[in-house]
Amino acid sequence: MSFTTALTRLDSTQSGFAQTLRQLLAFEASEDAAIDQSVVQILQAVKTRGDTAVLEYTQRFDRLSGISSMQALEIPQEDLHAALASISNERRSALEAAAQRVRAYHEVQKRECGSAGFSYTEADGTVLGQKVTPLDRVGIYVPGGKAAYPSSVLMNAIPAKVAGVREIIMVVPTPDGVRNPLVLAAAAIAGVDRVFTIGGAQAVAALAYGTESIPQVDKIVGPGNAYVANAKRRVFGTVGIDMIAGPSEILVLCDGTTDPDWVAMDLFSQAEHDELAQSILLCPDAAYIDAVHASIDKLIATMPRAEIIRTSLKDRGALIKVRDMQEACDIANEIAAEHLEISAENPQQWADQIRHAGAMFLGRFSSESLGDYCAGPNHVLPTSRTARFSSPLGVYDFQKRSSMIQVSEQGAQTLGKIAAELAYGEGLPAHARSAELRLK
Amino acid sequence: MSFTTALTRLDSTQSGFAQTLRQLLAFEASEDAAIDQSVVQILQAVKTRGDTAVLEYTQRFDRLSGISSMQALEIPQEDLHAALASISNERRSALEAAAQRVRAYHEVQKRECGSAGFSYTEADGTVLGQKVTPLDRVGIYVPGGKAAYPSSVLMNAIPAKVAGVREIIMVVPTPDGVRNPLVLAAAAIAGVDRVFTIGGAQAVAALAYGTESIPQVDKIVGPGNAYVANAKRRVFGTVGIDMIAGPSEILVLCDGTTDPDWVAMDLFSQAEHDELAQSILLCPDAAYIDAVHASIDKLIATMPRAEIIRTSLKDRGALIKVRDMQEACDIANEIAAEHLEISAENPQQWADQIRHAGAMFLGRFSSESLGDYCAGPNHVLPTSRTARFSSPLGVYDFQKRSSMIQVSEQGAQTLGKIAAELAYGEGLPAHARSAELRLK
Repeated sequence: MSFTTALTRLDSTQSGFAQTLRQLLAFEASEDAAIDQSVVQILQAVKTRGDTAVLEYTQRFDRLSGISSMQALEIPQEDLHAALASISNERRSALEAAAQRVRAYHEVQKRECGSAGFSYTEADGTVLGQKVTPLDRVGIYVPGGKAAYPSSVLMNAIPAKVAGVREIIMVVPTPDGVRNPLVLAAAAIAGVDRVFTIGGAQAVAALAYGTESIPQVDKIVGPGNAYVANAKRRVFGTVGIDMIAGPSEILVLCDGTTDPDWVAMDLFSQAEHDELAQSILLCPDAAYIDAVHASIDKLIATMPRAEIIRTSLKDRGALIKVRDMQEACDIANEIAAEHLEISAENPQQWADQIRHAGAMFLGRFSSESLGDYCAGPNHVLPTSRTARFSSPLGVYDFQKRSSMIQVSEQGAQTLGKIAAELAYGEGLPAHARSAELRLK
Repeated sequence: MSFTTALTRLDSTQSGFAQTLRQLLAFEASEDAAIDQSVVQILQAVKTRGDTAVLEYTQRFDRLSGISSMQALEIPQEDLHAALASISNERRSALEAAAQRVRAYHEVQKRECGSAGFSYTEADGTVLGQKVTPLDRVGIYVPGGKAAYPSSVLMNAIPAKVAGVREIIMVVPTPDGVRNPLVLAAAAIAGVDRVFTIGGAQAVAALAYGTESIPQVDKIVGPGNAYVANAKRRVFGTVGIDMIAGPSEILVLCDGTTDPDWVAMDLFSQAEHDELAQSILLCPDAAYIDAVHASIDKLIATMPRAEIIRTSLKDRGALIKVRDMQEACDIANEIAAEHLEISAENPQQWADQIRHAGAMFLGRFSSESLGDYCAGPNHVLPTSRTARFSSPLGVYDFQKRSSMIQVSEQGAQTLGKIAAELAYGEGLPAHARSAELRLK
């Protein structure tokens, strides 16, 4: 068979397969010295000159020369509600239904992730435990222009709200003054407290250091361009940040029983994001892989974003024949994909084998797009193999813990001797004396 | 009264107090361009030349010119156990008792922090949930030289073990080939799997990228010098990292009912770490503050590390008179200290007011040093006000979550319409089509 859509075809039994796969997955955000230098300058300027610097950069980068004060860069709550009123009923209902489901999921997550903290008492009366507290104030970065997604506003703001964050500050650049009513409507639905129309490294700096008009936050979440990512990495420590997002990825594990058109469209749904997005299929059935390739050929022409899809599939996509579903699971653990669809009979048996994935979509009705918008779990997920060590954005990202230690007089006798022994061993005599003073 | 020990004395009713306090707390890790450049080079060299580069840097920086192969840089398990056998019975018992208590606390933490994940089924049969998985492999950085603390080995390795991490790799530089038997003994007790005598940015690079001899890890934890901190920040994303540690801090809230010698010694126990460490007392009782200052004068001469303590107290310490304990709590939330001692009657009433602290030590018998070694909770805590958004090192740092989404055929009908509506709104038609294909 011959296919018209260019796409890497691999077989796990080929020699050098492991290395080929590694190369296919390799992605490194380019480190651009010019961006680096520019971000350092912007951060410093905002840190020292506050509002004045933010205003200057916004006038220049977003071409808002008509704006002369920071006040004009804040969108009042009335405008958010006006945006909500301005969109169609269908869209408003869909946004509200999505928000309701995302909220419900994160409320369960809050209950299940140990938000109540814990405490226990030992025989000698010593009490140990942990207290869980929401963050005071959080900043949400929302990209402007073509990648302005109302769903991302919901996915970032709702877990913060559920966690109990007191104040949510959103920043969204509005180049040439163009506002996205869907994004503002989503902010209204999610309960965002304040919105500023600023972006780039200057917005990250304003949130991290605070200015006369913009309050300092405790954590900044949300995706952005290379300047934003660089700035977030630099302010990490002054504030918390979420992960640095790479290109989006989907990995489909299919046993060959799903309509190939469905799988083809699922691969497209990732590829249409941008040229760097990655769509991969693992399947033990060679004939089925051909059928999916044929579906791709058939369907691609119907897609409005066909050119982006074509480039993404050609440069970063792959259809991979594997020995069996067990091997597919092993390879999936190697890939540690952001989105993993297990489109198979009895998907749970394979899900049990998966250690590393941002989100797993089980069964053929669980298309990734349902998770992107409204299934309930968060769509902010670890990319570029970071699912090996990081998690979906969640309520836990907007909480932190404090250890609680209340040693009884009796407990201080036992613990004091152990602590003193070790402190002398480490050459820290004041530590030892501090414990010994509590001995009778 | 006049005191001999130089120490900032403040009163919260003074004008400009808030700003004075901010200046006192201000600490910024200096950004050194030379370190920056050097780290970039080291990371690149290890990434491309692997073992060869690690060996070269280790020979040079740790003066180990006699070492000619990576094999010689690994400490076999027998040596760890020999180190354990070599230390005194008292010290060994203390280490084991500490390890047992730290393990017990983290086992409770594991149970209470949602490690089992969750799952729930909706009316239409859709199943949503979250799976929790330990990291596969973790690297622990242990500083060499004077700051080589066996207690840190326990505090970093035990939560990883409790979480279920499969393999723990420890790196510890041994300048001039000098090994610390207590550190190796702690590694044996904690169950560290492999130990390499490497350090600096080259060790961080080896763990982050992997070399021929050193396996790539998923996360790197543990404190280090400026090179290590810089390297960790740079490899963040390739691997996970813990927080970037700043100088250690203690904040004591005292109602004036604790023996002033005890509080003086608690302040010393932080100050003796290094000149940049910060020790602050908040108290509503002016006479008591004088008594603590007098105790400091009396006790400081008896301390082996008196010079470090003197410098730390002079440059960064403070005794602060507050209006009342309620104001002390408000200021404590502003400071967001790593260690917070509430040395008062009924300490829980004040602890309830505290939102931001790494660890709280309640009651006069809970000296910070007990928490440093053996109370059970982790001594790796957020510094430099990062307790506003981060947590003690814990089992949760060695686990990550995956969302689970299994949409039923019926569920796909409801969710598909919502998702398609929003996807069209965001200009992502393949997302919409992927949902629509599942509609009947």
